[in-house]
Amino acid sequence: MKLVASESLSRLAALHCSACGTEYSAFDLQRVSACCNVPLVADYDLHEPLSRAVIDQADTSMWRYGALLPLLHEENKVTLGEGLTPLLRLPRLAARYDLANLLLKDEGQNPTGSFKARGLSMAVSKAKELGIEGCIIPTAGNAGVALAAYCARGGLKAVVVMPRHTPAAFKEECYWYGAEVELVDGLISDCGARVRQRNANGALLDISTLKEPYRLEGKKTMGYEIAEQLGWTLPDVLLYPAGGGTGLIGIWKAFQEMKQLGWLAPEVKLPRMVAVQAENCCPLLETYEGRQSNCHAYQGRATLANGLAVPHPLGEAMMLRVLHESNGTVVSVSEEGMLAGMRDLGQHEGLFVAPEGGAVWTAARQLLATGEIQPHENILLLNTGNGQKYMDNVAGRARG
Amino acid sequence: MKLVASESLSRLAALHCSACGTEYSAFDLQRVSACCNVPLVADYDLHEPLSRAVIDQADTSMWRYGALLPLLHEENKVTLGEGLTPLLRLPRLAARYDLANLLLKDEGQNPTGSFKARGLSMAVSKAKELGIEGCIIPTAGNAGVALAAYCARGGLKAVVVMPRHTPAAFKEECYWYGAEVELVDGLISDCGARVRQRNANGALLDISTLKEPYRLEGKKTMGYEIAEQLGWTLPDVLLYPAGGGTGLIGIWKAFQEMKQLGWLAPEVKLPRMVAVQAENCCPLLETYEGRQSNCHAYQGRATLANGLAVPHPLGEAMMLRVLHESNGTVVSVSEEGMLAGMRDLGQHEGLFVAPEGGAVWTAARQLLATGEIQPHENILLLNTGNGQKYMDNVAGRARG
Ligand SMILES: Cc1ncc(COP(=O)(O)O)c(C=O)c1O
Ligand SMILES: Cc1ncc(COP(=O)(O)O)c(C=O)c1O
Ligand SMILES: [Zn+2]
Ligand SMILES: [Zn+2]
Repeated sequence: MKLVASESLSRLAALHCSACGTEYSAFDLQRVSACCNVPLVADYDLHEPLSRAVIDQADTSMWRYGALLPLLHEENKVTLGEGLTPLLRLPRLAARYDLANLLLKDEGQNPTGSFKARGLSMAVSKAKELGIEGCIIPTAGNAGVALAAYCARGGLKAVVVMPRHTPAAFKEECYWYGAEVELVDGLISDCGARVRQRNANGALLDISTLKEPYRLEGKKTMGYEIAEQLGWTLPDVLLYPAGGGTGLIGIWKAFQEMKQLGWLAPEVKLPRMVAVQAENCCPLLETYEGRQSNCHAYQGRATLANGLAVPHPLGEAMMLRVLHESNGTVVSVSEEGMLAGMRDLGQHEGLFVAPEGGAVWTAARQLLATGEIQPHENILLLNTGNGQKYMDNVAGRARG
Repeated sequence: MKLVASESLSRLAALHCSACGTEYSAFDLQRVSACCNVPLVADYDLHEPLSRAVIDQADTSMWRYGALLPLLHEENKVTLGEGLTPLLRLPRLAARYDLANLLLKDEGQNPTGSFKARGLSMAVSKAKELGIEGCIIPTAGNAGVALAAYCARGGLKAVVVMPRHTPAAFKEECYWYGAEVELVDGLISDCGARVRQRNANGALLDISTLKEPYRLEGKKTMGYEIAEQLGWTLPDVLLYPAGGGTGLIGIWKAFQEMKQLGWLAPEVKLPRMVAVQAENCCPLLETYEGRQSNCHAYQGRATLANGLAVPHPLGEAMMLRVLHESNGTVVSVSEEGMLAGMRDLGQHEGLFVAPEGGAVWTAARQLLATGEIQPHENILLLNTGNGQKYMDNVAGRARG
């Protein structure tokens, strides 16, 4: 009996500083750049041509793109089958709102119920490859659950630091994976501070968003999948719920890589990237619209969409670059707007999405109303999570 | 922009009575057999050879096996991307318990969080193809959630009749899909009685387990996937949590079809099929061991594994046939045993499974202890659902 599996033939070459470009070794343990104290980004050797035949079609997970992922040795792979989530047409919602082509990528079908599975599968695999024995993470919820699951799967210790107000389902699921959970009064930024304090001796690997370079590489697989699932074309506009921003940055990175590889024909236009935030916590919007020079002093509040309650995203500059390069924008959604989006997706398309996913659909409607999106365009919604773990907070709200 | 999609080229030919073999048309609306009042089973025209090339490799859902599924017209397909769930090795649990080869198929990664998505995607698609406007279902929980989701997706009305003691998450998710939910004091059998009463005029299609022939066809895709994912080999023993039994019967049907098609080589042995039940409700075990002649008067109690609280399965005779033909067996697991199984899978493999999935692992351990399974065998566990919707009932039990 054999499992269909593939060898990893990674083309990983180096890391570079996302601010000044200084190169770092990809073969030692790295965190942020020593030069500018900002995120490091992985580079691949794309000199020798790499055709789309390198995609392992027998692998129905994100690992099918192994050549463009940073894992060097197959035996270090920590996987639960994440990725290659369905890209669904939404014909009933499209008809209801007179849209030509509405699509949704359903990341709620990942292990642990969110797109965070991709980043944590990758980061934990690399941690294992680098000989790390335990990881620690500040989280709004989903990333912590995913870290706990992948550490259990890989035999690493996991410490999850979460806001106390996070719905119980997120904490409980961590316990089932045997993780240690610490609760903090405040938002993810306060959890980040607690992680730095608690892990001052560096005994554990800090897996905070963009503080190590590999979660981003896991997230970018969404971009590869979108292109492959659309037959190597892309939508006109892509809406994404941005908290820390790895998804937004990662998908854009994938598009750039595919252009460089020639996997996307020269005439294929890259989509406008729309970052969707919560009215209760929209630091990117405030900076984008010039009401603050950056997010450092931004005061955010809790929101139903835990994942968007990130007041000081480390990747702010990288996100802004994506918005500018793609001619995209930022939009914020109210708490009631998220619930309305969830209802629409549930009742008309059979999708029970996270508030983050509800926000994305409502954001699309807002931009259709202002004319920033046209009804004839190909619109892609990224639903980043399943609604189940939010149930306590949204119970009784299904009927509006 | 195009979505990668395939035309359905179904070989559906007829239906037959599962007791006496009488043939029925597969092109009209059918429920149970008129001759014997038992389930109908779908047959395909397999005279013209059909090679494995008929599998649509670009389709990463259960619909890749379209030629062997009953849907005739692509436009009636009601899909959320169900199926082609990961088949995972469990190396850490295997090492812990000295097993050579332990595998788990994780059906918790389906839309709506359980394998029920397969059966309901198929049944609702066929209901749509047959011009039905609404469906009704008695359910222990997961099937009702899936019915609600697929009816919303397809634009059909859904009525879900569920035991009142079912955890709130199952009911709430149905509301998000806009379904009508009726609560009944008792088990699924009492819900079935209520469905018959409420739908006496036949206005809705009764989607009860095995009362229409197509849920079974959706479930059988698990069998096709197992073979394909194992490179057209099969495990020695397959453990499955059996309530109504469609999964067990469907997987076995797939194995038979693949033998007939020549997709499985003559030397490939079919696995021993093990039906796993709850001690609180184990009608099949009682009949199998001769303590009752059939399940009609069996008295079951509620269990953490809602899906196993089926005291009078309509498919009892069909399940017993599978057990006998496969040289399999039935085993029951205590409530504490289910929790212990959930803990093992969570802490050592990063899988937060439904109590039904926990039961399957504990059942394997029980059969290893009695020698009915040998440690050198290839053992496949079917985890039928994600643990999330059971959270209220298992909260605080992660630590044993
Ligand atoms: C469901 C969900 N959506 C979106 C986000 C934001 O993702 P990112 O931090 O990559 O921007 C999160 C982060 O926690 C999340 O859990
Ligand atoms: C999680 C889960 N496992 C197993 C079962 C039993 O499945 P079947 O009725 O096909 O035997 C159910 C049915 O409700 C279920 O929800
Ligand atoms: Zn620098
Ligand atoms: Zn008959």
